[in-house]
Amino acid sequence: MAQCAPGNIFTVSRVYKKFSRAAGLAPGELIHVGERKSATTAITVFEFDSENMTERRIASPDDFIPFKDFSGVTWVSVEGIHDVLAVEKICAAFGVHPLVIEDILNTSQRPKTEDYGDYLYVVLKVFSFSEEDGELLTDQVSLILGRGFVLSFEEARHDVMNPVRERLRKKKGRVRTHGADYLVYTLLDTIVDSYTVVTEDMEEDMDLIEEELMGSGSDKVVESIHSMKRALIHMRKSVWPLREAVNLLYRGSSPLITADTRTYMRDLYDHTIFVLDTQETLREILSVMLDVYLTTINNRTNEVMKVLTVLATIFMPLTFLAGVYGMNFRYLPELEMHYGYHIFWVVSFLITAVMIYFFRKKNWL
Amino acid sequence: MAQCAPGNIFTVSRVYKKFSRAAGLAPGELIHVGERKSATTAITVFEFDSENMTERRIASPDDFIPFKDFSGVTWVSVEGIHDVLAVEKICAAFGVHPLVIEDILNTSQRPKTEDYGDYLYVVLKVFSFSEEDGELLTDQVSLILGRGFVLSFEEARHDVMNPVRERLRKKKGRVRTHGADYLVYTLLDTIVDSYTVVTEDMEEDMDLIEEELMGSGSDKVVESIHSMKRALIHMRKSVWPLREAVNLLYRGSSPLITADTRTYMRDLYDHTIFVLDTQETLREILSVMLDVYLTTINNRTNEVMKVLTVLATIFMPLTFLAGVYGMNFRYLPELEMHYGYHIFWVVSFLITAVMIYFFRKKNWL
Amino acid sequence: MAQCAPGNIFTVSRVYKKFSRAAGLAPGELIHVGERKSATTAITVFEFDSENMTERRIASPDDFIPFKDFSGVTWVSVEGIHDVLAVEKICAAFGVHPLVIEDILNTSQRPKTEDYGDYLYVVLKVFSFSEEDGELLTDQVSLILGRGFVLSFEEARHDVMNPVRERLRKKKGRVRTHGADYLVYTLLDTIVDSYTVVTEDMEEDMDLIEEELMGSGSDKVVESIHSMKRALIHMRKSVWPLREAVNLLYRGSSPLITADTRTYMRDLYDHTIFVLDTQETLREILSVMLDVYLTTINNRTNEVMKVLTVLATIFMPLTFLAGVYGMNFRYLPELEMHYGYHIFWVVSFLITAVMIYFFRKKNWL
Amino acid sequence: MAQCAPGNIFTVSRVYKKFSRAAGLAPGELIHVGERKSATTAITVFEFDSENMTERRIASPDDFIPFKDFSGVTWVSVEGIHDVLAVEKICAAFGVHPLVIEDILNTSQRPKTEDYGDYLYVVLKVFSFSEEDGELLTDQVSLILGRGFVLSFEEARHDVMNPVRERLRKKKGRVRTHGADYLVYTLLDTIVDSYTVVTEDMEEDMDLIEEELMGSGSDKVVESIHSMKRALIHMRKSVWPLREAVNLLYRGSSPLITADTRTYMRDLYDHTIFVLDTQETLREILSVMLDVYLTTINNRTNEVMKVLTVLATIFMPLTFLAGVYGMNFRYLPELEMHYGYHIFWVVSFLITAVMIYFFRKKNWL
Amino acid sequence: MAQCAPGNIFTVSRVYKKFSRAAGLAPGELIHVGERKSATTAITVFEFDSENMTERRIASPDDFIPFKDFSGVTWVSVEGIHDVLAVEKICAAFGVHPLVIEDILNTSQRPKTEDYGDYLYVVLKVFSFSEEDGELLTDQVSLILGRGFVLSFEEARHDVMNPVRERLRKKKGRVRTHGADYLVYTLLDTIVDSYTVVTEDMEEDMDLIEEELMGSGSDKVVESIHSMKRALIHMRKSVWPLREAVNLLYRGSSPLITADTRTYMRDLYDHTIFVLDTQETLREILSVMLDVYLTTINNRTNEVMKVLTVLATIFMPLTFLAGVYGMNFRYLPELEMHYGYHIFWVVSFLITAVMIYFFRKKNWL
Repeated sequence: MAQCAPGNIFTVSRVYKKFSRAAGLAPGELIHVGERKSATTAITVFEFDSENMTERRIASPDDFIPFKDFSGVTWVSVEGIHDVLAVEKICAAFGVHPLVIEDILNTSQRPKTEDYGDYLYVVLKVFSFSEEDGELLTDQVSLILGRGFVLSFEEARHDVMNPVRERLRKKKGRVRTHGADYLVYTLLDTIVDSYTVVTEDMEEDMDLIEEELMGSGSDKVVESIHSMKRALIHMRKSVWPLREAVNLLYRGSSPLITADTRTYMRDLYDHTIFVLDTQETLREILSVMLDVYLTTINNRTNEVMKVLTVLATIFMPLTFLAGVYGMNFRYLPELEMHYGYHIFWVVSFLITAVMIYFFRKKNWL
Repeated sequence: MAQCAPGNIFTVSRVYKKFSRAAGLAPGELIHVGERKSATTAITVFEFDSENMTERRIASPDDFIPFKDFSGVTWVSVEGIHDVLAVEKICAAFGVHPLVIEDILNTSQRPKTEDYGDYLYVVLKVFSFSEEDGELLTDQVSLILGRGFVLSFEEARHDVMNPVRERLRKKKGRVRTHGADYLVYTLLDTIVDSYTVVTEDMEEDMDLIEEELMGSGSDKVVESIHSMKRALIHMRKSVWPLREAVNLLYRGSSPLITADTRTYMRDLYDHTIFVLDTQETLREILSVMLDVYLTTINNRTNEVMKVLTVLATIFMPLTFLAGVYGMNFRYLPELEMHYGYHIFWVVSFLITAVMIYFFRKKNWL
Repeated sequence: MAQCAPGNIFTVSRVYKKFSRAAGLAPGELIHVGERKSATTAITVFEFDSENMTERRIASPDDFIPFKDFSGVTWVSVEGIHDVLAVEKICAAFGVHPLVIEDILNTSQRPKTEDYGDYLYVVLKVFSFSEEDGELLTDQVSLILGRGFVLSFEEARHDVMNPVRERLRKKKGRVRTHGADYLVYTLLDTIVDSYTVVTEDMEEDMDLIEEELMGSGSDKVVESIHSMKRALIHMRKSVWPLREAVNLLYRGSSPLITADTRTYMRDLYDHTIFVLDTQETLREILSVMLDVYLTTINNRTNEVMKVLTVLATIFMPLTFLAGVYGMNFRYLPELEMHYGYHIFWVVSFLITAVMIYFFRKKNWL
Repeated sequence: MAQCAPGNIFTVSRVYKKFSRAAGLAPGELIHVGERKSATTAITVFEFDSENMTERRIASPDDFIPFKDFSGVTWVSVEGIHDVLAVEKICAAFGVHPLVIEDILNTSQRPKTEDYGDYLYVVLKVFSFSEEDGELLTDQVSLILGRGFVLSFEEARHDVMNPVRERLRKKKGRVRTHGADYLVYTLLDTIVDSYTVVTEDMEEDMDLIEEELMGSGSDKVVESIHSMKRALIHMRKSVWPLREAVNLLYRGSSPLITADTRTYMRDLYDHTIFVLDTQETLREILSVMLDVYLTTINNRTNEVMKVLTVLATIFMPLTFLAGVYGMNFRYLPELEMHYGYHIFWVVSFLITAVMIYFFRKKNWL
Repeated sequence: MAQCAPGNIFTVSRVYKKFSRAAGLAPGELIHVGERKSATTAITVFEFDSENMTERRIASPDDFIPFKDFSGVTWVSVEGIHDVLAVEKICAAFGVHPLVIEDILNTSQRPKTEDYGDYLYVVLKVFSFSEEDGELLTDQVSLILGRGFVLSFEEARHDVMNPVRERLRKKKGRVRTHGADYLVYTLLDTIVDSYTVVTEDMEEDMDLIEEELMGSGSDKVVESIHSMKRALIHMRKSVWPLREAVNLLYRGSSPLITADTRTYMRDLYDHTIFVLDTQETLREILSVMLDVYLTTINNRTNEVMKVLTVLATIFMPLTFLAGVYGMNFRYLPELEMHYGYHIFWVVSFLITAVMIYFFRKKNWL
């Protein structure tokens, strides 16, 4: 991303997604609200304990029989949520409340954690930059943590969760040996780490913008600052409530999260605050940059004006003088003087010298 | 709305409504404070349970005999509140405190929830855009939730509650099978959803404004930003306290709201915060737009100044020179030179070249 | 007030009143601090219950014998507090603490409620606009609520409390039938209502300012915004702490305020917050107006500069050209050409056309 | 102070005092950090009860034998703290913790109250304006309140505490008849009153600045606003934490402060908040002034530009026309016309009239 | 540092350090994240009680045998953390949690205190200015306080902790006679003192900037303000959370910190807040400076414009007049007048006089 020109990097075309299609509906009527981001809904089921792991791709939610008596962890990963029926069926199989299903399907949720007793519902956002035009894209991820199972719903296929899938397959790290709560922690940690990457990309662009600013400083730079600030405002809207959501996972009283995992959740909370701090810092620096730039421009205008004024001040009297002796009055005695022309030049130089001296004193030159 | 030119969309002529007519009155004296927004007061009574529903239009409040022993839900919907007597009689029939009646009639209330033990009083605002000039209109809606009954008072006939009436008639959704508290939730949910629609309309206008801004950027755009910011300031004044009011419905201890409905109220609380967040985001982006626009204008002025200065710097010496050789001094040796005129042009081109070189180096060209 | 020109409406000459005369004094030394606002101190005693009411004008505090055993409510209304001795004697008769007397006499108090066990001390401000020059005037009102009595101290005679006196005389409203606490509520309510009137007057002026701003937009308008913002800053300093003071009356544990009156105090609290919200809204809109105005001015400067530059760009080369053919070189071949003059005009039109085309492309025309 | 020109009033040369000399030292190593502000250290001991009072000037701390069994109040007043040994000895005699001694000697303390059980340590600042150049001077005052004794340490001799000394000598007010806690209250009250005087002086200067601003409005005024704002930022840094410190004296649980004195401390707390409010108000008004001034300047630049543009627009075509008929083309038919010159003037007037009409329509004249 | 030109002092090239190399890793995988700042890892072990002290330099962590039964204090000081294995081994020897080791190695931690029961983990930042280009450098310091031992990890060799080492060696101060908690306090105190030094350096630079600003005020000054504000934003991000971390040491319930040391921690807390206050003050003053500077520039542009306009207004009519009488109309009666030329000058002087009078009245001269 850092290789793009700063002018066209961030173009957050819409600050939030429409959900007017949902307005006026009765609560509980299920409908997918949001753009259709993926062609197909891919459902993958991971069943694992420290010993074994099976990974199954399921064509239809009807093919899915959850092994309720399975002692390990079941992770149902749904990529693409436009297939309302599939989402509903999977949720129903695990006893999820209709309001939660509604929230999963409506992709304009504020990040939050909700404790429904038997399960926890966590919803948050994933950011990425579009490959085509560098636009900041926001996708919603919903996680449900129950006793021995995790459900995850993504708007589209992201790469963001792939490292976790890899670690599961390769039995890497602690994720295979710990419970469903640790899996949720791992997924959240991976997502929050991805925020850091996005923030770092932004910072690199900011360095480019700064260089540009101190150089020519065209309108394009101001547009870049503008779109970057918009992107940061946009992201904060999603990251700020996440802080509260993670805090609830760390301090909440749900028995679904073990004391051991809580220590990790505290770490996650620190990371979230770190991302927030960094974004806040970036916003403040952008404000400073804009203020400084405005001052710089006004300073330059002042410089330009001085040049113009100095020039006008010198040449206006001279031109007038030349005009005077270009007049055709019959009786114009200076014209007849032998050294008239020479005196004209001397006077001209004197005027110029006085003016220059005056501007030097005024610190304009 | 999005098809209008952005210049004349928002014209919030008054930030808050007058209620000076009420100042100086003794508390408890009932008087309608606000514009008379509808010609007639329409009173409709809905009596329903999961089986049956009757809908009656009542000409005068005296015709209304509430079936106090009716086991279902009674909803008295009053549209138009300038008929003080009618409002008072209906409220009296349900034992509503005079202060509440005063608040219903005075249309400059801050949104709030008040727990009077036997009933809850909720007051909030409805926003719409005037069909004629796109002005943001604010109307007050008062809701009273008692044991088995709901009273609603609207300043004028809005369409905002019609979806709920439709659902009641068509037995759609959960509203017929649940209690009066759920009906209040449904009404509030419908109103908060309407905020979202208004906010989305604003965002569409903001996109138009932005396009305009990056293009010509006339005074009209600045006025649009101005009126949009005013509208947002105005709306926040009504939505911000609503957050507190809904929170009280969700966390309050009133036995009038069942645990089941509280879950929905929590959802409503999330929606309210989402609307607030979005409006805050819009305000911040408008601020950024204004800052960026100011910088852009100054930048352009700087560009214009440079063009002027470059031109003046080149032509002022040349014009002076032409003036010199237009002088009528009897003794002006250069005029007599054979190649004088050619030398004049050579010197002119030299001056121009030096100036252009100088401005190139100064990065002005 | 709304009929005045906006330019000279608000001139808050002093942000706070001097009390340096009091600095250096020992605490407890009583002295009136503030301007002497009324020539005489008028003391009026109202004694009433639901049946009877006597109203006496007292020349000297020595004439005043409080009927301590009177079962109704005694209201001692003191208008004009420069007569330190009178204030002190009245306070002493009701057992008021010296610090409270000091606060009553010093007119630069921050609004507050203080619970002294036997009585409550409430101090707040009354705003009005001077008839002469529209200046915002601030006067201090002190209220003491004891068991069966109310003391009120005003800096000068205001009309603000007259409606309450009228209601007492005419036995209107609930004030005659309820206790001293309800009388205090009524007085406070009347004062807070007067804030609303002042705020509305300001808003009308703001509409005038806005019209002016979008029109000519002279320096005078900016001064009006300035003085209005100052007035709002000034008022907030007095209204913001009032919120806390009223909250204490509503939530405090003093037995002097009955549960019934507390319901009314809650209403008063809502009104106070409403006034604060409205003033905050006005301040924000003024800020937006100033920002927008600054941008508009810069935009107009840019427009003016473009006109100047376009003109200069067209006429500078032409004037130079005319100057060239006004030169008196002996050998200047073009002058001798038969169509020289016609060619000059053709070249001039060509230059102009090229320039106009160039500026059209640059979007300057 | 108010008689000085506003330009050179506030010059807060350093925002905080250096204490790098102290960095790197072990905690507990005593060293005086700060400028040496007085030549000598003056130690005065007041011993008083309601009957008697002795006042002794002590040359060396060794001469000081505290009458530990004295039933009245002992006040040891130390003016000038560069004599580290003297400070240390006095503190040791009263059992003061080394950290407190360190804080007394280091004059860059944040105002605070610390409860050490046997005694309370209060540190705060005194402001004054330098007689020479009107610079805002900050001095530190430390107060220690123990059982029956008060220690006060001032950086230099101030007049600020003299009124208290006078009252002690003249047996004026309550200070002689009340305990050590009341003496501390009196000292603090006197200091906070001095803040009010300083704030009032600033306000008078602000009125001068405002007059200046609306008049000529040179760079000097902007510098005055700048230095005043700096001074306010500087003072708030010292007054803001004082609020917390006084709150602790009023609400804290130390048995060293009697319930009676706490009532006075509450009053002191109100005064402190009042000073803070006033300074905050001044800062906000300064910000408004700066914003308004910036707008005014831009407005004036716009006016100046209009004048220039109007002039240039009228005279540029005319000068060009005059230049045209000053050309020496052999064949220039207009020159031969009899009324050519008169037509020239008519055309000139027409051009001028059209231009003026155009500018009138554009609202530039 | 103060001797450098202000233009090139602060160049905080990166607001936060990269740790993308860590994103995507499983939690618990140890890797050093950050720049490799020192060539070697230096491990020094101090073992001391009030009597004796040994200081050993250890080549490899394997050489280190902690005397677990040693009754004094063991301080293991690690300088340079890129040797992951060494860090891990030392931590393991003292039973430190893997998450803490991860935090020690990842140098982009937010300052915090974490209580792991058996030990406390404190992480904070050290600031310094690069010798070469005055860049603000940030290094991370981790401290672990256990029962009788302290571990410290620095990114590189700083001088910041040397005074503590010296005091240990020379048995100076209380550090040898008190426990491990006091050692941690001393280390933290030394670091926070170093913040003060950095802040003071900044303030000196700010004085330079201010002088520059009031003088010529070139673009360079604005850049200096910019980079200084960035540095302050950057530092606050590290100092603000430290406040919370120190508060936990002072108010937390860990038995590892004695009541005696807590008194010192309270002092440290005060110092941290003092640094924060000072930096906040510096930021505010920088904002004021930028605002004032912008106003000053606009004021100067206005002055320049006035000069230009005054000149143009005087010379444009004169030049036009001279042009008129330079025209070659055959019939131009004024040219034939004997005193035509003299009248021309008189008219010129009259025009000039009228113009000057007009500008005087407009307050432009």
